[in-house]
Amino acid sequence: MLRIDTSAVPAAKLEALLPQTLEAHNKLQNKSGAGASFTDWVTLPEDYDKAEYRRLLEAAERVREQSKVLVVVGIGGSYLGPRAVNEYLTGDPSLEILFAGCNLSGDALQKLTNRIGNRDFTVNVISKSGGTTEPAVAFRYFRALAEAKYGKDGAKSRIIATTDKSRGILKSLSDAEGYETFVIPDGVGGRYSVLTPVGLLPIAAAGINTNALIAGAQAMMESCKTAKGLENAALAYAAARNVLYNGGKKIEVLASFDPDFVSMGEWWKQLYGESEGKDGKGLFPAAVSYTADLHSMGQYMQQGERTLFETFIRTDTPKNGITVETDPANTDGLNFLAGKTIDEINDAAYQGTKKAHTDGGVPCLTVETGVKGAEALGQLIYFFEYACGVSGYLLGVNPFDQPGVEAYKTNMFQLLGKPGV
Amino acid sequence: MLRIDTSAVPAAKLEALLPQTLEAHNKLQNKSGAGASFTDWVTLPEDYDKAEYRRLLEAAERVREQSKVLVVVGIGGSYLGPRAVNEYLTGDPSLEILFAGCNLSGDALQKLTNRIGNRDFTVNVISKSGGTTEPAVAFRYFRALAEAKYGKDGAKSRIIATTDKSRGILKSLSDAEGYETFVIPDGVGGRYSVLTPVGLLPIAAAGINTNALIAGAQAMMESCKTAKGLENAALAYAAARNVLYNGGKKIEVLASFDPDFVSMGEWWKQLYGESEGKDGKGLFPAAVSYTADLHSMGQYMQQGERTLFETFIRTDTPKNGITVETDPANTDGLNFLAGKTIDEINDAAYQGTKKAHTDGGVPCLTVETGVKGAEALGQLIYFFEYACGVSGYLLGVNPFDQPGVEAYKTNMFQLLGKPGV
Repeated sequence: MLRIDTSAVPAAKLEALLPQTLEAHNKLQNKSGAGASFTDWVTLPEDYDKAEYRRLLEAAERVREQSKVLVVVGIGGSYLGPRAVNEYLTGDPSLEILFAGCNLSGDALQKLTNRIGNRDFTVNVISKSGGTTEPAVAFRYFRALAEAKYGKDGAKSRIIATTDKSRGILKSLSDAEGYETFVIPDGVGGRYSVLTPVGLLPIAAAGINTNALIAGAQAMMESCKTAKGLENAALAYAAARNVLYNGGKKIEVLASFDPDFVSMGEWWKQLYGESEGKDGKGLFPAAVSYTADLHSMGQYMQQGERTLFETFIRTDTPKNGITVETDPANTDGLNFLAGKTIDEINDAAYQGTKKAHTDGGVPCLTVETGVKGAEALGQLIYFFEYACGVSGYLLGVNPFDQPGVEAYKTNMFQLLGKPGV
Repeated sequence: MLRIDTSAVPAAKLEALLPQTLEAHNKLQNKSGAGASFTDWVTLPEDYDKAEYRRLLEAAERVREQSKVLVVVGIGGSYLGPRAVNEYLTGDPSLEILFAGCNLSGDALQKLTNRIGNRDFTVNVISKSGGTTEPAVAFRYFRALAEAKYGKDGAKSRIIATTDKSRGILKSLSDAEGYETFVIPDGVGGRYSVLTPVGLLPIAAAGINTNALIAGAQAMMESCKTAKGLENAALAYAAARNVLYNGGKKIEVLASFDPDFVSMGEWWKQLYGESEGKDGKGLFPAAVSYTADLHSMGQYMQQGERTLFETFIRTDTPKNGITVETDPANTDGLNFLAGKTIDEINDAAYQGTKKAHTDGGVPCLTVETGVKGAEALGQLIYFFEYACGVSGYLLGVNPFDQPGVEAYKTNMFQLLGKPGV
């Protein structure tokens, strides 16, 4: 089971904050806090539509049978989650998954088209409303591409929409065209949607065990609900970051030693940045990939402004894997590592880094996830979601809205002459 | 020519800082500041070894002829620069370039090996000393792989070392084994090395026009040397970020609207973070890729803690490219965009974002690079390097050392039982 080390924060401070932490926890459990109508993710690992889930697994299987490429069209929560899980757990390479609709670059769209080439593809468009510009533009493009290649009828079985259950442009269009649809539940916002069909369809299509992912989330849901006080990892993490923030830390750096974790870092940045970055408040979320970034951001971490803290993500060190071989000549002087696996060296790098940064004045938390895999990742995802809700309530914001995202869109639509803006 | 908009910073404050800015500038030009022995990059676009450069272009051609994959083994400045340039300018896909030695993951190394498969490969190992753990471990592995596949003799023409001109483990080993070598000049640190053979060999192997890249850097070198006062874009940028930092901004967010720029952001983060993050000082460097990250970090940028400023990177909007087509049914309501290129919509997104963030209390600078290409990128690279040196001197640090990078290594070597540690 996932564990957290918050020993960098004085226990007395965490204890002092416990009443407020429990109050925040109760708000989530009782749906009595700000934005409560967007907290259905709290019980999602149990309360999901089982029949729809079975249909989703069938659809994923069909995608794998009929395609070499799955084009996922989505932005924000509609792509960060599935991309992160697929990269971290390494999907089956026999289906390539490409992400579109997450930028406004004509060149990127052209390169994606070239990459698909003559291969068979399926499109999974993910949008609650269908009105978000980036995915809407990309979907108009890929719909035309699919119809040109497979005919209007053939395209029907190659377009799957994940969208609102009844409202919105994308739902109407899908019903009119006869596309299969999956539901983004009303009570789950984009950044909390990875365990809805938003994430599950592309993840299942990648051949990843979604049952194990959900089981992990379920286990963590139970733990978050019942574990007492600071024994509750999510409460401990939320309290620790609140104490650090109020003590003057303005930046949280999420640090992993697994290069597969990079996109999980991006998912985490949205989760925390969008939940807490409002009302002039919030820790600035940043992510690093070690040991690579020890050779770039490492200098800053060690000796820069002391306004940050660091949260390490650790999985158990794999038992097997590539070993450093003995070289009789030892020209490169590496024989002191001979017989060690690369991952054992990685573990020493982690320990060395945590000590170095601690000595350098950076409070360091560690989240231990256990053996890398779908179940541990399900736990980690739910852990971060739950802690984020608690943390947002502790901060005194509504962790489930994102009022600031509209400002640039309004300006953009005015420039583009959108009717009615 | 590259231009900068610093109008978000009061002109009077930039003027007031001008004497110190010019002093910092003179330190660079006269090699009279801290760390001056590592400032040979200042004149590098002219003062490079022309014969070695010709040999480098030949080696790059040979790599392309004999291989389908180039494995670049390096970490920090030895991989961030070449990776960034190759991704931003999109190398020729007929040679795949893979980066190794930039992490300590056995799984990542195994996946890289699987990805090479049966294809012919060349290895370019990049390390000043040869002693850095990550690339050293990876190089021992790939050297064995090349020798197993091509024999000890055959491997000689498939291993190229970019290293010190005379000292260090990698140089000795290369001389003993007969590998071709290229020189990392003594006076150029890792994060300033992209226009040395460190970057130029993998960039040329990718089929990118290194002559144009160098020509761009040369033009910017001339401009940085001669442009007067705040007409000098690098001085204006350095002064603006110093004014903002001293005014309480602690984070600089580099924002591009080109998804190809992501790795350039990582290169920039090393350049500034490692140069300035010391003595308890320095702006924390972060990078975002819009419009994707408007749907993740956008909320924080708009309404979070007001301790940050933003630097936009803009290239000219491409004249051609994919256009939004008219859809007679207009089910998705996008016909107001019909006839516009996706890049024109992107430009509106940029303008809308800059206005929104400015209105939200974020000072926004913009660097305009002109038409995207190798020459503009050469300008941008030199611009950032020069401004970084000036900015570091303004901050009162030595921008050319990285004393904090050793701390974790020392701890790690103790744990690993390295002889003599």
